[in-house]
Amino acid sequence: MQTIIYTNSVSEAIRSLVSEMNPASVHIITDTNVERDVLPRLGLDYKIIAFPPGDEHKNIITLSSIWASLIEQGATRKSLVINIGGGVVTDMGGFAASAFKRGIRFINVPTTLLSAVDAAVGGKTGINFEGFKNEIGAFAPADAVVISTALFSTLPSEELLSGYAEMLKHGLLSSAEDYAALLSFDILNADLDRLLPLLEKSVKVKERIVGEDPHEHGIRRALNLGHTAGHAFESLSIIKGNPIPHGHAVAFGMLVEMILSHTAEGFPSDELYRYAAYLKSQGYGTPAITCDDYADLIALMRHDKKNDTPDSINFTLLSSPGKVLIDRTAAEAEITAALDIFRDMME
Amino acid sequence: MQTIIYTNSVSEAIRSLVSEMNPASVHIITDTNVERDVLPRLGLDYKIIAFPPGDEHKNIITLSSIWASLIEQGATRKSLVINIGGGVVTDMGGFAASAFKRGIRFINVPTTLLSAVDAAVGGKTGINFEGFKNEIGAFAPADAVVISTALFSTLPSEELLSGYAEMLKHGLLSSAEDYAALLSFDILNADLDRLLPLLEKSVKVKERIVGEDPHEHGIRRALNLGHTAGHAFESLSIIKGNPIPHGHAVAFGMLVEMILSHTAEGFPSDELYRYAAYLKSQGYGTPAITCDDYADLIALMRHDKKNDTPDSINFTLLSSPGKVLIDRTAAEAEITAALDIFRDMME
Repeated sequence: MQTIIYTNSVSEAIRSLVSEMNPASVHIITDTNVERDVLPRLGLDYKIIAFPPGDEHKNIITLSSIWASLIEQGATRKSLVINIGGGVVTDMGGFAASAFKRGIRFINVPTTLLSAVDAAVGGKTGINFEGFKNEIGAFAPADAVVISTALFSTLPSEELLSGYAEMLKHGLLSSAEDYAALLSFDILNADLDRLLPLLEKSVKVKERIVGEDPHEHGIRRALNLGHTAGHAFESLSIIKGNPIPHGHAVAFGMLVEMILSHTAEGFPSDELYRYAAYLKSQGYGTPAITCDDYADLIALMRHDKKNDTPDSINFTLLSSPGKVLIDRTAAEAEITAALDIFRDMME
Repeated sequence: MQTIIYTNSVSEAIRSLVSEMNPASVHIITDTNVERDVLPRLGLDYKIIAFPPGDEHKNIITLSSIWASLIEQGATRKSLVINIGGGVVTDMGGFAASAFKRGIRFINVPTTLLSAVDAAVGGKTGINFEGFKNEIGAFAPADAVVISTALFSTLPSEELLSGYAEMLKHGLLSSAEDYAALLSFDILNADLDRLLPLLEKSVKVKERIVGEDPHEHGIRRALNLGHTAGHAFESLSIIKGNPIPHGHAVAFGMLVEMILSHTAEGFPSDELYRYAAYLKSQGYGTPAITCDDYADLIALMRHDKKNDTPDSINFTLLSSPGKVLIDRTAAEAEITAALDIFRDMME
């Protein structure tokens, strides 16, 4: 299992890990935004490999340049990589480390809430390839992850909202109590000190699920809750030229899938209203869709890589908060009905 | 542990594995020589991805083209790759499969003795990068390996000799009996049916050692026997423009390291003479070195990646056949003396 450290003192935690691991050399992998905005605050004296920010740089060209930099900086099999950044940095830096000399040690230090709760933990690393997301990669858990909400102080509130959607997901997968605690937290005006223990609880839900099924043969698919419909919202928004953040799309996708859960599995209807009210109160907005978009959304859900056959659409459903049902399918008519209810609730 | 099948019926073994694994699709990765010379004999009806032969193509460009072909051929997470070829094919094809969609299943079918006894088994995969051998890769064991000496019938005798050096190494690491059995086999005029059980015994030695230490933190380094001096012979021959095969270099390197073992650890001297006589009787030839080459050879040994610090030269030594001592070092004067004795014995 990975060491995960929850702290308000990031630099100290990193220095102490480095001293414990006693590497031959230390190489920070990051993007140029984090290099400019975050690294000076940390005051770490290690070699730096920085690439331009953005998912469009999460590719084999940037990956090769990271490997070339590691060689140029004299990294050996006993060196250590520290990935400091969002999901692009931890995904690509983790894969770079896992394949360099067939694998050197690495630490993840997520600088966004989304990467703290999602990408930095659990061992999925990779790059995009020929337009396919995370097509090339490895299951390679970081040796340690340092999680601190102190790094989020300069994040725009939109980014906090986006990451919080994944926390809501973990709450729903965990228990009615965990989920209720999240709905009573004000992420729009977040108290970062109070966020840290909530984040710790949330990451532990993911750790537990990943620990039971590291290679996603079964229960790990529970973590796809909200993502079948969510990815469709996200892709459609990109196609329409008005992209919404990943977490917002997942937040909307979870409502669609809760509605499907209500119809198919008796998920309580008052939970639907409570959840929709929370999204509206926190300013998640609403995806601008009409019934003319249904065919496109359903086609996008059908092409999701989580489907084992092209004829079925796979969902993770819930019979209540904490009661998870993986590998469920829904017919087009059910999805259409759920999208109608979704639009009503979010208006 | 990997399934390893020893057989004289390669196609049947492959078809039976495919039927058992029930993949969504099957993709053969190979080089164009094997595609032309071996695949027609096997009569398999699977998709083919072939690249030009040779270590110079074991790079990120070819690797990317393999991934692109897998996508183009519609490979999914439930597809199967079959690597059919020598070490370049199994190393690169194995890494391609291990990183495609974070890992799909693959089978290795070695077509050279060297890859059967060495590269195809044990999970080391990778490509060369910026002039460094196997700089990028993964520890990823094949789901199954199909080993058949029937595939070697068209190999030049030089290739059989080269692979047999690794078998001699496994014999030395295993026991006096296994080693003696190898010295009484005529690899120069090889009876391939008799070679199969010897090969099986040899691969099992490697399996046992790799099973005890898959990530090479300790005893797996025993498999480096002969390789510190051997790589130096190999590199020097390339620098001089007259390259010798890898296995031949290892065969010579083992004699150098047996001489060091004799001096430092009392390895019996009659074993040295017996081994040198075998090499000469089987036509391994001799590396054309003089005492003017010693400084270069020692410098090459010093830069070997098996050294943890640049100041020491790491060897695997033996106190007798089957009695292995890893992580030993030798001083320059001892190496110089061993090279003198080596030249005397091989003349």
